[in-house]
Amino acid sequence: MKVGIADTTFARYDMAKAAIDELKQNMPGIGIVRYTVPGIKDLPVACKKLLEEKNCDLAMAFGMPGKTEKDRVCAHEASTGLIQAQLMTNKHIIEVFVFENEADKEKELSKLMEKRAREHALNALKLLYSPMSLAKQAGSGQRQGGADAGPIH
Amino acid sequence: MKVGIADTTFARYDMAKAAIDELKQNMPGIGIVRYTVPGIKDLPVACKKLLEEKNCDLAMAFGMPGKTEKDRVCAHEASTGLIQAQLMTNKHIIEVFVFENEADKEKELSKLMEKRAREHALNALKLLYSPMSLAKQAGSGQRQGGADAGPIH
Amino acid sequence: MKVGIADTTFARYDMAKAAIDELKQNMPGIGIVRYTVPGIKDLPVACKKLLEEKNCDLAMAFGMPGKTEKDRVCAHEASTGLIQAQLMTNKHIIEVFVFENEADKEKELSKLMEKRAREHALNALKLLYSPMSLAKQAGSGQRQGGADAGPIH
Amino acid sequence: MKVGIADTTFARYDMAKAAIDELKQNMPGIGIVRYTVPGIKDLPVACKKLLEEKNCDLAMAFGMPGKTEKDRVCAHEASTGLIQAQLMTNKHIIEVFVFENEADKEKELSKLMEKRAREHALNALKLLYSPMSLAKQAGSGQRQGGADAGPIH
Amino acid sequence: MKVGIADTTFARYDMAKAAIDELKQNMPGIGIVRYTVPGIKDLPVACKKLLEEKNCDLAMAFGMPGKTEKDRVCAHEASTGLIQAQLMTNKHIIEVFVFENEADKEKELSKLMEKRAREHALNALKLLYSPMSLAKQAGSGQRQGGADAGPIH
Repeated sequence: MKVGIADTTFARYDMAKAAIDELKQNMPGIGIVRYTVPGIKDLPVACKKLLEEKNCDLAMAFGMPGKTEKDRVCAHEASTGLIQAQLMTNKHIIEVFVFENEADKEKELSKLMEKRAREHALNALKLLYSPMSLAKQAGSGQRQGGADAGPIH
Repeated sequence: MKVGIADTTFARYDMAKAAIDELKQNMPGIGIVRYTVPGIKDLPVACKKLLEEKNCDLAMAFGMPGKTEKDRVCAHEASTGLIQAQLMTNKHIIEVFVFENEADKEKELSKLMEKRAREHALNALKLLYSPMSLAKQAGSGQRQGGADAGPIH
Repeated sequence: MKVGIADTTFARYDMAKAAIDELKQNMPGIGIVRYTVPGIKDLPVACKKLLEEKNCDLAMAFGMPGKTEKDRVCAHEASTGLIQAQLMTNKHIIEVFVFENEADKEKELSKLMEKRAREHALNALKLLYSPMSLAKQAGSGQRQGGADAGPIH
Repeated sequence: MKVGIADTTFARYDMAKAAIDELKQNMPGIGIVRYTVPGIKDLPVACKKLLEEKNCDLAMAFGMPGKTEKDRVCAHEASTGLIQAQLMTNKHIIEVFVFENEADKEKELSKLMEKRAREHALNALKLLYSPMSLAKQAGSGQRQGGADAGPIH
Repeated sequence: MKVGIADTTFARYDMAKAAIDELKQNMPGIGIVRYTVPGIKDLPVACKKLLEEKNCDLAMAFGMPGKTEKDRVCAHEASTGLIQAQLMTNKHIIEVFVFENEADKEKELSKLMEKRAREHALNALKLLYSPMSLAKQAGSGQRQGGADAGPIH
């Protein structure tokens, strides 16, 4: 199996590094192709190229939208493109975006980014190696990076 | 006939379970393929894979967007992708989303989710087994999960 | 010529019935295939199936979005999908949506729905039987269901 | 060369007539196919049909969105569809929309519509007959219908 | 290698000129095809034509949205189309947009446009000649045109 890792120079933390470490720790020998582009709007085609030209089986797209309304619009455009790319390839792209305003302090933010990247790397492995296994957690309120919301009662 | 059931680990209630129960009660022997993914933005490609790779005749997509503006944007992106997936496959995907702010108390929310899932399961069966049968209820103000609005006078 | 009629059980008035009556009165013997689905987001694929699988030459999509912001988002998603479906088939889909907040009283609302459905049925016939005929009304401020705005002076 | 002219009966001024006059004055013998549809959301498929079924080399899409928020959403949906239609055909569609609230008085509005239509007709001719010629005006702050903004200093 | 340069007559500064200068300084002999269109909504098909009909390996799209809400919507539509064009061609389009309200004074604005254009030209060269080289700057908070945000600590 081969995972494509697409990320940006715009982001202020290296989430891809954390995800690659997590992938390798849990699945030594997994194939990894990394491709860094300038910003999040470059991610959809970057992922599509990884899936089609590098024959990756799944891609992960790491991005860190800034704090302004314009950044939120960019993130929306990127997300829409990532969904389109999946529909054109029939392969998953795990979107791992952390908005710069999700935490106030840089320390919390970096911790959140590290954790979300690692937890989504585990999701990627489940989708790749045991695609039916996530059903055990269906409807259980999982969150990546923070505390799980848990199921409602 | 085979129904694809796509849902998420993000949701806080197992709507898919309710829908599968309803499908089986009303149509014993119906084929069911369940596929759970992390979040609602993963649902479009999940449904497309169920329809194309697992040869399902129809899919249901269960999701539970959170309470924030960002969650509403995610839901919009997912819905747009689900419509695209339908246009690419010429098959129906019944979107069953319950927004976390549709009810104040957890008990009401879970009741709403259970009911909406079951009522949409019945819609799915009608579309599959008697696609022209819903015309009897055309313009009658049906609602899934709550009281019907009914026709205007 | 064959017209596909797609509508919903969500709507609170049977606009399709009015449109079918208008179509038959003005063009006896016209082919009509009706297909009712649960909600407006199911309309794009319903229309595409009517155009491609039932060989309709044109489709009409009837919907009645509710009063909330969420309903407006659903309508936007449905409209986007209806435009996509047209681009994929090179056939017209006449969108006939009436928002529940376009009139205060139920009586006015039903009158508006009846009238908009009938007037758009006439548009459908013009597009089908004399596609160049609407040019006579170009830029004349036509409105379906209410008083025409008329041309500016 | 053949230009497709798509416009609406919803608009309150005949912009297409002005554009056709401008095209013919500047390029006698140019082919013109006009196609009028009810509203702006019908323009994307109308243009695609002109480009593909009538073999037009370029299309112009004339529309006049009303004053409400709903009209702005319709315009956004139409614009998105017009861009998609261009990507599917690799041909230009010049969008000539005038929003009803761009001018207060009807006289100003009609003057603006006339002028924008004519100036975009000239743009269409440049794209068709000398596609590299607009580079002379690159970054010069051109506006169609009103005074040019001009370059910044 | 050949770079397509698409820009507009609407913009008030010639960003393309700056980018072409930067490209040629750093990679003498690189192929360049420039194509100017009226506005930003014409950029998606302009880029697609450069990539498919002129065989460019990458395109850059320069635009300068105005200050109003309507301009922001246009920019969103253009961006969505640019992402779609990339997914249809599997080639990068570097979007270089400067919003007219990013700086108060014309002098600052022109400086920003010049700098963003040049810095994105360097990004284009990296994507073309050493596609894996941007990984060295991954997560480092790069910004084009202004001071870099830098990594978080």
